[in-house]
Parts: sequence; C-alpha cells; structure tokens
Amino acid sequence: MKIKTALPMQDTGSQTKGALTRAAILDVSLELASGKGLEGLTIGSIAERMHMSKSGIFAHFGSREELQVEVVREYFRRFETSIFQPALQAPRGLPRLQRMLDLWMQSRIRELNSGCMFIAGAVEFDDCPGAVRDELVNSVQIWRTALSRAIGQAIEIGDLRKQCKPDLMLFQIYSVVLGLHHDVRFLKQPASIKLAQQSIQKIIDENRTPQ
Amino acid sequence: MKIKTALPMQDTGSQTKGALTRAAILDVSLELASGKGLEGLTIGSIAERMHMSKSGIFAHFGSREELQVEVVREYFRRFETSIFQPALQAPRGLPRLQRMLDLWMQSRIRELNSGCMFIAGAVEFDDCPGAVRDELVNSVQIWRTALSRAIGQAIEIGDLRKQCKPDLMLFQIYSVVLGLHHDVRFLKQPASIKLAQQSIQKIIDENRTPQ
Repeated sequence: MKIKTALPMQDTGSQTKGALTRAAILDVSLELASGKGLEGLTIGSIAERMHMSKSGIFAHFGSREELQVEVVREYFRRFETSIFQPALQAPRGLPRLQRMLDLWMQSRIRELNSGCMFIAGAVEFDDCPGAVRDELVNSVQIWRTALSRAIGQAIEIGDLRKQCKPDLMLFQIYSVVLGLHHDVRFLKQPASIKLAQQSIQKIIDENRTPQ
Repeated sequence: MKIKTALPMQDTGSQTKGALTRAAILDVSLELASGKGLEGLTIGSIAERMHMSKSGIFAHFGSREELQVEVVREYFRRFETSIFQPALQAPRGLPRLQRMLDLWMQSRIRELNSGCMFIAGAVEFDDCPGAVRDELVNSVQIWRTALSRAIGQAIEIGDLRKQCKPDLMLFQIYSVVLGLHHDVRFLKQPASIKLAQQSIQKIIDENRTPQ
C-alpha cells in the first residue's frame, strides 16, 4: 500500500498509475497468500483490502489464475533478489554453496511466521494441474538447479569429495528445509531451527574434502 | 461404499444401520480428503457421492469440523493398524525402529498417488487454529513420540551409539519423509524414492554402534 500512497496520483501518467496500482495489488496479494495460501487468494478479499471493486482488480489481472501466477513470479523475484543474487557474489565452490544455504535458511527462519509460498504451494497444488502449479514447479526447479550447480562446482573445485552425489545431497538439504518449515509452523517447535542448522552443517561436513 | 451395500439393510437394526452409514460416510470422506485435502472436504460433495441429502450427513456428524476431526481419527486408526501395531511385534531396539521406518516408508510410497493426510494437513492447517489442527498435531505427535521412544530404546540396548541424539535423528528422519512426499507428488520425481531410502539408511548407519 505504501507504493500506492507514496506518490501523488495526479502527478503520474495513467500508464505509471496503472503500473503502481498493479504493483500494489501484487503486494497485497502476496501478503494475503502468505497467510491463507495461494488457494485462499480471492479477488473479493483483494478488492476489499485495496478498497477497489472486483472489476477494478480484473482490469489489471484478467483472471484469478493469472493473478496467482503473477504472485508466484513476484515471490520468486524477491527470492532471487534476497538469496540468489547475493549468494552469486561468493566465490565458486563451497563458499558459494554455503552462502546460498545460509541465506536460504535465514530467509526461511524469518518467514516462519508467514510460511514459504513454495513449500505451502507444493502441497496446495500437488494434485492441481494448471498454470499456477507449473509456475510453482518452475520456480522451485530453478532454485534446485542452482543448488545442484553449486554442489557440482564445489566437487569440481575439490571443496567437496569426488564421491559426493549431488542428487542425494540436494535431496537431503531440501528435506531439512521442509522439516524446519513443518516443525516450526505446524508443530510449533522452534527448537527445530537449531536441529535444521545442525543437519545442514552435518550434510556439508560429511561431503567435504578432508583438509 | 462396500460396507454399506455388503449387508442387506433390512436385516440390520437401525443402530447398526446408522453405524454402517456413518462408517460409509467416513470412508467416502477419507477418499475425498486424500484427493482434495481436508479443507476441500465439503458436506455437499460427500452428500453427492453418498446419494444422500446434506441433512442426512449432518444427522451423523454435527458439523463439517466434527466430520474433519473424525476423518483425521479414522486415518490415524488405519495408520496405527498398518504401521504402528505390526512394528511393535519386532524386538525392541534397532529391529523395531527399522521395522517402523520400513513400514512407514512403504506406506508413504504406496500413498504417493493420494498424498499423506498428515503431511498435507500440516500445511493446510498450520495457520488455522481449531479442533482439526489439534487432532492432526495430536496424531503426528503420537507417531513422533513412538519413533523417539524406539530410538531411545535402541540407544539403551546398545544398538545405536550412546552419542546418538534422538531429537536430531527424529528430525532428520521426518525431514526425509517430507522430502519424499514433496519430490514425488509435487515435482513428479519418482527417483527420489531411492534417494529417500538411501537417506534413511544413512541416518541409521551413522548412528549405529560399530559391530
């Protein structure tokens, strides 16, 4: 909403105003989706929060599905900006992999109150073929491919053992993040944050080339 | 539905007939919930499948929430019968723990088409306080406590190392099962079944007392 009220509307052209409204709708939608899930996102609830009519929302997003897809894309853009891009600044090999995992874990822990759209979406849409599911799978696979690549580079460089199996290591790491989300959000066991951190460290240590 | 049609209604008293109808409603509800989740379970869809009126369903379950709670209980009863009780036949210690994990993994793999109610429910209800969430948490915690106890006994007996940390081991095992569910159902990666089995074996092996 900040975006919408920060600039006086009369000073902006209608195209800019449209873009700002669209961005504000996405902002509110992201917030709503993080509480109630993508499936809980309705045009009605967004219209209410935006003090707009439903048709006003439809003027920016042709359908609920289109809006959901855009929400997933926006969520992924933020994920890229806060995790992906900063991690690429670290040197190739274990430092970069470690940085990716650190930033990812930190963001998961920060987001434990609202939940992760990719983890929640995985369950919400596992049985629902369509554009939203495709976009979710696409986003998750981009991130998993990046993690795999970082593991592969760490093996090439010699930071991780030659025997390290990237698919197994990725599976174990991703499982730990799912476990963290499950225990803290569902079981309300914050002690699992430490267990998740220990588990990630353990996975790295057992694959690390002995010094 | 089998239960309902297997016995001729005229031969059963009204109490038995009521119990059979109730069991048939639960059966259909379980099936619907495994496809669309507990949140997708509506009295309307059950009534349609049962060829009954909505008020007919309400005569057996006072509210949708009561029905959802009963569905969770019924799912847990089946979980107990197929996994919990057979595993208790194995000798205390590592054999029993291993049997629990084997049966659990086998049932997860069998159920990958429909999904696990506890895993899906964890995401559906993580932000929804109420009786359904409480029943889900209760079921999951009974199973986790049983796993913890089995780990503890395996340490006591000396099958697992004294240094083994039950809470960390439980976290790692549960995470693997979540990872399996995620990869196969959401990402459609059946190769993760093997990765999950390897991961469980690895967790056991690194905690096992050397022979």
